[in-house]
Amino acid sequence: MNDNSRNLSMLTDLYQLTMMYGYFKNGMSKNEAVFDVFFRPKENITYAVMAGLDSVISYINNLHFDDDDIVYLRSLNLFDEEFLGYIADLKFVGEIYGIPEGTVVFPYEPLLRVRAPIMQAQLVETAILTFINHQTLIATKASKVCAAAMGDTVMEFGLRRAQGADAGIYGARAAIIGGCDSTSNVLTGKMFNIPVSGTHAHSWVMSFPDELSAFRAYAKTFPHACMLLVDTYDTLRSGVPNAITVFRELRQQGLEPIGIRLDSGDLAYLSKRARKMLDDAGFPNVKICASSDLDENVIRDLKIQGACINSWGVGTRLITANDSPALGGVYKMSAEVVDGKIIPKIKLSDTLAKITNPGYKKIFRIYDEQHMAVADLIALDYETIDCTKPLTIFDPEQPYKRMTISNFSVRELLVPIFKNGAQVYESPNVFDIQKYAKEDLASIWDEYKRLMNPHIYKVDLSYELYELKQRLVSVND
Amino acid sequence: MNDNSRNLSMLTDLYQLTMMYGYFKNGMSKNEAVFDVFFRPKENITYAVMAGLDSVISYINNLHFDDDDIVYLRSLNLFDEEFLGYIADLKFVGEIYGIPEGTVVFPYEPLLRVRAPIMQAQLVETAILTFINHQTLIATKASKVCAAAMGDTVMEFGLRRAQGADAGIYGARAAIIGGCDSTSNVLTGKMFNIPVSGTHAHSWVMSFPDELSAFRAYAKTFPHACMLLVDTYDTLRSGVPNAITVFRELRQQGLEPIGIRLDSGDLAYLSKRARKMLDDAGFPNVKICASSDLDENVIRDLKIQGACINSWGVGTRLITANDSPALGGVYKMSAEVVDGKIIPKIKLSDTLAKITNPGYKKIFRIYDEQHMAVADLIALDYETIDCTKPLTIFDPEQPYKRMTISNFSVRELLVPIFKNGAQVYESPNVFDIQKYAKEDLASIWDEYKRLMNPHIYKVDLSYELYELKQRLVSVND
Repeated sequence: MNDNSRNLSMLTDLYQLTMMYGYFKNGMSKNEAVFDVFFRPKENITYAVMAGLDSVISYINNLHFDDDDIVYLRSLNLFDEEFLGYIADLKFVGEIYGIPEGTVVFPYEPLLRVRAPIMQAQLVETAILTFINHQTLIATKASKVCAAAMGDTVMEFGLRRAQGADAGIYGARAAIIGGCDSTSNVLTGKMFNIPVSGTHAHSWVMSFPDELSAFRAYAKTFPHACMLLVDTYDTLRSGVPNAITVFRELRQQGLEPIGIRLDSGDLAYLSKRARKMLDDAGFPNVKICASSDLDENVIRDLKIQGACINSWGVGTRLITANDSPALGGVYKMSAEVVDGKIIPKIKLSDTLAKITNPGYKKIFRIYDEQHMAVADLIALDYETIDCTKPLTIFDPEQPYKRMTISNFSVRELLVPIFKNGAQVYESPNVFDIQKYAKEDLASIWDEYKRLMNPHIYKVDLSYELYELKQRLVSVND
Repeated sequence: MNDNSRNLSMLTDLYQLTMMYGYFKNGMSKNEAVFDVFFRPKENITYAVMAGLDSVISYINNLHFDDDDIVYLRSLNLFDEEFLGYIADLKFVGEIYGIPEGTVVFPYEPLLRVRAPIMQAQLVETAILTFINHQTLIATKASKVCAAAMGDTVMEFGLRRAQGADAGIYGARAAIIGGCDSTSNVLTGKMFNIPVSGTHAHSWVMSFPDELSAFRAYAKTFPHACMLLVDTYDTLRSGVPNAITVFRELRQQGLEPIGIRLDSGDLAYLSKRARKMLDDAGFPNVKICASSDLDENVIRDLKIQGACINSWGVGTRLITANDSPALGGVYKMSAEVVDGKIIPKIKLSDTLAKITNPGYKKIFRIYDEQHMAVADLIALDYETIDCTKPLTIFDPEQPYKRMTISNFSVRELLVPIFKNGAQVYESPNVFDIQKYAKEDLASIWDEYKRLMNPHIYKVDLSYELYELKQRLVSVND
């Protein structure tokens, strides 16, 4: 499933290399460190659907510097030959834990935990963030679009507006994880065995003397998959009547047409009028597909207005996550490892929410008896939870807000991906990830997933982690 | 300069392939057509800086289907063997005219004009739009950021927030075209010979027992390039004083420090305080670099408040163009070619601005005697302008608004890129493009480039094109 063809080892910020050089020259190349990837909440990102892990796996497996990379780095006149020789032999030997793709995740949780020699842990920061930030963003957006579509088919149509080829390719894969049924992107279809969809554009209609000839030619070419775009000239006066003419001709050959597509105008009004025209003509099963600057908000409003739309082609606003085009995930050091011993580290800030969670951590998701998620608990790696005893959790920013839970089960979210540099996890195929994501989303109350003013899911700290954090804050104060 | 290593021929929408099949099966494979790439205005995109042409060139040169592409397309059960054999041999044989990268362009102007057998012209639509939409968007955003920085150094720092690897790689190149001085992205630096910049992160500081040790180690490693990040613990109480200590130690060795970087907090306040502390300590030449959610609006406001910042590291909001993350460029058929004769085509719409400009067109930019741009005129390809006679232009949507110009010169914006499938244009290196872009931007009055409520630059139609458009609208009505 991985795309191992590209060496993206140079896809890093220069400061990773200058820091690596600094560690190397200061006798710290053997030092080990732990870093967490996490994101902070934003107005429209209070939860996310994890994605990008598969790209991280490919990238780490392929991490090495080629001869021409070394030649280029030498040309910068920043590094000595000893260092260049060292990185020419570099191979990732660390450990990575990650949350499987498709899991619902929340702010401040470690989505990935990297423990490695500090030079390696530093090198991989940038690319890891690029993959996780981008793909998690798009999977999350897709999950909202698909929730708004309430079970209707959703097709990802955004390639032409994607921020470059990779944004189209991996964005489409992430959109499938988030719930989309297919993509228009043929390369993504080929790479990840994802259904591809699409029929014709306005240019097809314009290539014929008139719309009816264009529709007839399309029906002749694809008699079993006849979906016609009806808005090139005039949707209700020309497009739909011509489509009905061709649909009748198809039926005379014993074939049933598939549908029409609306791509402009007021989709609520046009879809209702078109539906009536199709029904009156004896085509109640012909589907109406809509595209045109759609997103979760537009789809929700069209549904409220009774739009007769069966499938949604969602492009620009999905593939760019246009209302918030960056997840903003960060990669922060949480510990050093000295002689095998974890030394927790903290990054302070005047802003409470920007103080990092120190230590070598894991995440428990706590479920009630109906397997609905109650809260997540970030804890230190050695901690366990005894599910036979009541558990008291509290808000780390307002510790007087507490809650005791009984009859619960827990699940650890972080799983091993790499150990000693070797991959120990295989990505499922993308539709198995989608199925898992749907189940995982179903275990989160809708109240947390509401588009406007969602309730905020509890991500608490274990008592031990809370105490550790307080201690480190006061030591550093 | 081109990245010819990847075959992105499958980076297309499925409907391009189904339309190609339709043309093939309907005896239209020899038909030739003309398509224009253009964008429509948005609130924050009233002009743009052209970019992405270099990627188009690589893509077209490399356009072919590999055996495994054909195997995949066969598996879709949409196409017959005759068609699959046809596209297995496909090579682009058409003509492409384009506006050189770095040119200031405006809504409705053909940025690219593709004339080719319709199957080929259709196939390349999606990838061409992806490249031009993305890179033009980022070059434009960069031009605004750099204008706000008023000559200060601007560094592109966004890779970790880019929408995938390509968004980082080609986004950084586009940022240079738009005026940035360097990028943090090492791979972009290597691919396009662009200066790379960056020093160290908070994690560097956290890897040492204390901030002072971290600064000393950094200064020891890079004695000639000592730029210190001062906000890990407390900018004014710890970061700047420790930096000054290390700067004094450097000076005792006869070396001069480079600067400090602020990455959080109120940058106006902190930079003024830090400036005073550095000046008082005898370091008036030490630069202050700032990063932290910057964009053109933040930079403008910080400058108005007298922030003492010499260089700007701009990340997320530049690399994603976050206030409008898609240019929205389209690819519309403007003509068919039958027996070598151009048959203009139009796409109608209820919205006046969405009616396309028909025909095989070119663009004149009209300059006054001071070489400031006065207006652009979209004309038919055979038209010429006699600069010795007064020229009357008019607003095509409000034809009574007219203006007569004398003492002007004109320049055609579209230049040949491919002829008969062969590349006839070489991209300049990226800093030559940047230099050209700066000159081109300087020929556009600031009034058209204002961030808020800019004046709208005139993009008019020649009289002949206007007449043609009116005629086609009434014929199709």
